[in-house]
Amino acid sequence: MTESVDRKTAVLRLRSADDILILCHKNPDGDTIGCAGALYLALKALGKNAAILCSDPIPSLYDYMELRQFDQSFTPAFVVAVDVASIQLFGDRNNVQKYAEHVQLCIDHHASNSGYAYETLLDPGAAAACEVMAGVISDMGVPIDASIADCLYTGIATDTGCFRFASTTARTHQVAAHLIEAGADVERLNARLFESRSRARLEIERIALESLEYFFDGRCAMIYLTWDQIVTSGVPGAELEDLTSLPRSIEGVEVGLTLRQQKDGSYKISIRTSGTVDACAIARHLGGGGHSRAAGCEISGNLDIARFAILEEVRKELERWGLLERN
Amino acid sequence: MTESVDRKTAVLRLRSADDILILCHKNPDGDTIGCAGALYLALKALGKNAAILCSDPIPSLYDYMELRQFDQSFTPAFVVAVDVASIQLFGDRNNVQKYAEHVQLCIDHHASNSGYAYETLLDPGAAAACEVMAGVISDMGVPIDASIADCLYTGIATDTGCFRFASTTARTHQVAAHLIEAGADVERLNARLFESRSRARLEIERIALESLEYFFDGRCAMIYLTWDQIVTSGVPGAELEDLTSLPRSIEGVEVGLTLRQQKDGSYKISIRTSGTVDACAIARHLGGGGHSRAAGCEISGNLDIARFAILEEVRKELERWGLLERN
Repeated sequence: MTESVDRKTAVLRLRSADDILILCHKNPDGDTIGCAGALYLALKALGKNAAILCSDPIPSLYDYMELRQFDQSFTPAFVVAVDVASIQLFGDRNNVQKYAEHVQLCIDHHASNSGYAYETLLDPGAAAACEVMAGVISDMGVPIDASIADCLYTGIATDTGCFRFASTTARTHQVAAHLIEAGADVERLNARLFESRSRARLEIERIALESLEYFFDGRCAMIYLTWDQIVTSGVPGAELEDLTSLPRSIEGVEVGLTLRQQKDGSYKISIRTSGTVDACAIARHLGGGGHSRAAGCEISGNLDIARFAILEEVRKELERWGLLERN
Repeated sequence: MTESVDRKTAVLRLRSADDILILCHKNPDGDTIGCAGALYLALKALGKNAAILCSDPIPSLYDYMELRQFDQSFTPAFVVAVDVASIQLFGDRNNVQKYAEHVQLCIDHHASNSGYAYETLLDPGAAAACEVMAGVISDMGVPIDASIADCLYTGIATDTGCFRFASTTARTHQVAAHLIEAGADVERLNARLFESRSRARLEIERIALESLEYFFDGRCAMIYLTWDQIVTSGVPGAELEDLTSLPRSIEGVEVGLTLRQQKDGSYKISIRTSGTVDACAIARHLGGGGHSRAAGCEISGNLDIARFAILEEVRKELERWGLLERN
């Protein structure tokens, strides 16, 4: 079991160490990369040797950060993990597991952190690991310059959906203000992180909107995509996943459904609800599962069969909550 | 010509006045309504009589604000305008023009403010009129409670695209932090303001996406809407305005064009650019104007004529910046 440490102790460990390997989680996002990038620059500013290792390639979206990636010329003497909640999340490529077993310090904000590191600085009230890291770097005695500010802002902005998510607190905004004062180029960063959509993404959105149908007095909205449409559009999985929030985002909709045909012809159904209705209850009746607001299931058979089956369960659930009159 | 006043003077005027009429701009958005709502609540807290008047109905999206709307029982003794940059922007319904001619105090953040009021408190560095109003209310000696904070947060969040736009500064985030501490229910507000789209909005987006075309190796993207489509969709003006950011948001696009047919058949063209290309230069050649990244013009004639004219100017501008080889 890990030892919980405060910021002072974490800073002491980092200041006493050298040849520091910084580990990110797999499928890296702006928070784990921003956190690693900021820490790398801060350690470099203290004259230390450091490098970053991730199981997956770092998306080109983040190539404005000056990161030194781990290679064979680097021999780690101290291992720190950033924004990684459990050992499984390190992934298994690039020899990451070799170091993942011996993480000396973990800096994180996930309440679910499993405590795999020797010592853990955990702040579950922080909206992003970068919010924690901003305090760590200040306490390390490193002035936050524009490059470090860019990294930290990236993590905070991406993990909060640009200050939209419920995790955003007054402190999140205070840290953002501080980073802007330190020179974070938020105009360029926001344009890059939030205002650019691929052509493929727009094309699949157009197709999805063409399929949009409403049911049960507008309390349920459904979109569907065939396997051919998905393949032809060339949209990567993560962007396709984003689309599942579309039907639920429509005014008055309690249950949003996204039906995606799989290669074998069956339909994968994503269920998103706005609070009252239990998405997981709907999914469970069809052999699926998930959370109360986001769940999923799979139905074999053609589109008509899938539609009929899922709408029947949605109807029952809406009736159960008194959102629909029983016939 | 107006007299520029500082916050202290503006506060003095408001504190000395009573029976205060607060005017919003037409096609009201979150900033003008949030600003009016916050000022109304603050004046009420000081025991004053106040009411709000707008040329257009206040969208139901904002119905969580407790606003007293102007009616015949109210006789104004002092008129204050919030977030209204020029006298034309008051609109001409609800008898607004009667008061628009005699605005004693204007509180605004538009650098383009025409100076129509007797006195103007203008802060062009503020991301929203609500950012200015937050300071005014504090100086009025009214504690910012949760209801006032909700109003002010609404204006700041909507006018900055939830802290995404270039107008967002360190101070914008500091004010947001302060409003959250004061009890603004940002979770509920963000869900309502940013995660909910009307059916009409989605329908017009679908139509716009169907019209999407790319030009000049994908450096220019264009969408267009006919007058019939706009009227049939029933989308309010402000939501339609939002759509103009769509073509520019596509990866690789330097110039995004939105062509909206007017009632008389002519086309209103919105030009959005991503930094290099000058939108205003393009618009000026067609008798329009605006800013370097957002400009507009109007072209009489059918769609083919409008398309040809605007694309010709875009081509020249792309060539001028070396973004397109000359033929």
